Amino acid sequence: MQYLPDDPVRLSEDGKAVIAIDQRMLPGSTDYLTLRTAEEVAAAIRTLAVRGAPCIGICAGYGVYLSALRRAEAGDAPCSSGFFADAEIIRAARPTAVNLMWAVDRMLTCAGAHRTSDSRGFCDALRAEAERIHAEDIANCRSISEHGLTLLRDGAAVITHCNAGALATSRYGTGLGPLLLGAERGMTFHAYVDETRPLLQGARLTAYELMRAGIDTTLMCDNMASYLMATRQIDACMVGCDRVAANGDAANKIGTSGLAILAKHYGVPFYVFCPCSTVDPDCADGSAIHIEQRDPEEITTLHFAKRTAPEGVKCFNPAFDVTPASLITAIITEHGILRPPYDMRRA
Amino acid sequence: MQYLPDDPVRLSEDGKAVIAIDQRMLPGSTDYLTLRTAEEVAAAIRTLAVRGAPCIGICAGYGVYLSALRRAEAGDAPCSSGFFADAEIIRAARPTAVNLMWAVDRMLTCAGAHRTSDSRGFCDALRAEAERIHAEDIANCRSISEHGLTLLRDGAAVITHCNAGALATSRYGTGLGPLLLGAERGMTFHAYVDETRPLLQGARLTAYELMRAGIDTTLMCDNMASYLMATRQIDACMVGCDRVAANGDAANKIGTSGLAILAKHYGVPFYVFCPCSTVDPDCADGSAIHIEQRDPEEITTLHFAKRTAPEGVKCFNPAFDVTPASLITAIITEHGILRPPYDMRRA
Repeated sequence: MQYLPDDPVRLSEDGKAVIAIDQRMLPGSTDYLTLRTAEEVAAAIRTLAVRGAPCIGICAGYGVYLSALRRAEAGDAPCSSGFFADAEIIRAARPTAVNLMWAVDRMLTCAGAHRTSDSRGFCDALRAEAERIHAEDIANCRSISEHGLTLLRDGAAVITHCNAGALATSRYGTGLGPLLLGAERGMTFHAYVDETRPLLQGARLTAYELMRAGIDTTLMCDNMASYLMATRQIDACMVGCDRVAANGDAANKIGTSGLAILAKHYGVPFYVFCPCSTVDPDCADGSAIHIEQRDPEEITTLHFAKRTAPEGVKCFNPAFDVTPASLITAIITEHGILRPPYDMRRA
Repeated sequence: MQYLPDDPVRLSEDGKAVIAIDQRMLPGSTDYLTLRTAEEVAAAIRTLAVRGAPCIGICAGYGVYLSALRRAEAGDAPCSSGFFADAEIIRAARPTAVNLMWAVDRMLTCAGAHRTSDSRGFCDALRAEAERIHAEDIANCRSISEHGLTLLRDGAAVITHCNAGALATSRYGTGLGPLLLGAERGMTFHAYVDETRPLLQGARLTAYELMRAGIDTTLMCDNMASYLMATRQIDACMVGCDRVAANGDAANKIGTSGLAILAKHYGVPFYVFCPCSTVDPDCADGSAIHIEQRDPEEITTLHFAKRTAPEGVKCFNPAFDVTPASLITAIITEHGILRPPYDMRRA
């Protein structure tokens, strides 16, 4: 983990705040946010300062704990209405990544189990649960990376989209985990990184992580993957995801479904990596996944630096799309490698 | 033609310079370049101030004429070695758009036919030939647009990539011609415009042209086309091109081949529009088309406004890709609508 300055999200030493890398500023500068309230946690998630489905879940877990702490300091009893209102503020920060809802629900289940504790005991239980979510994610990413690494030969060339590395999770990551783990073991890879418009998580975050890990990294625009696959040997496409339906349909960063169609056209295996906390068993297929539409300015300005499109132009700006299970060669979770037909309720 | 301020390239009133809209500045400002020498013409093409295969051809034609004029003013006889050197400077400005080579060759053929004329007659002949290239392009675009319009219903929703409108040609354009002509006749369309990274010709130029023509225009990132086709009725993809091989393989802006693969996957017709001057009969198939690689800074900085990728990252930055003929529903030229199997030598 020496290739990253820090975990993207962690509890402060005094246990009263979340310290989060502000991922909007990378790679230009490594700034840290100190988040103390549910509103601050929700805002960090909403503005993508904290991003990546598993990382959002970890941050949400700590956020619910911090709410309990602040409510206790204000003299509220455990499970106050204010505490539940805070949890809902966090849950509503973004609609697509199911890890957010999953983590909040898990914290609320823990809260319910300790509702008769005194304030100290209630807060301690929630802190321990949030730390378990974090620790489990570290273990899950390691396990996902181990399973994923069995799919890659030494010297493999892979295409990634968005960022599914340590910044999106904790250590190793999901979609990038096999590369980062393999590199630690002395394997060599060539990673082709989609820049991932509009917010450039590939250019800013994935290229940064992979280069720091010493992996041979080439950046390209999203629309160059077809020509790359047409002209060079590509061994795999590897992506994370934000929500997997029971049938294996997977929501991930906008552009993922297009990359999967290209991979099928060119005969390149297409792998989706996620912890089981990303599976939504209540969601039968991808059509039930809510896709977030974001601010047109993400498209009409270049990373908010310069306006490049005509004033008044309408924009289509979905943050995610759904890759049908039929285009996914395998889904890799902490429990192993799943192949079609998928039944994710049993993952 | 009232929706554009001017032809993108035209001869100055005194006939001694090319006046070109600096397309790098659009849509923020409408600046004009005055090009007097072969070097200036080549630089304008190389830097994409002048772009679009047919427009490059028109500019090159005038550029060769201007060289003749300057050589004559300096006392050189017609067809001097300096004149041919100038023509080669223009021809070498960019490697992929065959219209550039086609226009220079046509001007040199004209020069050869008038090599025994006096300087005045030589220059007048070249000016007339350049003006014919320009006038023919206007007529060809009109004809392409008429043929293309027969492929669209009123109310059609189309996806475009890069810019194949009036700015890329003269009047109407090629890929956008049917929309612009149909709009003149009161038809309504919904145009979805790929922003077209890295240089954003879609966001900057196509959205600008279509909005000025009163067409309902929605801008999106290149990686959003798959989700759009998955969730909305799209009637066609329409693109221009930079070189067509004898078998119908078509080189166009990077990302075109990926869009064609998506169109095939979703069952959307994929149409390529070009004048016959874009056909290269000496090129058997797409593998023989030279693909220009451009400056990594086009990717690592956002339109040169802000650096967003890590220092030192490698980049893959092909300016074009080749769409195989098998993915093209029809190729529309000034002579009509061609369907596979293509034999472009007979187009």
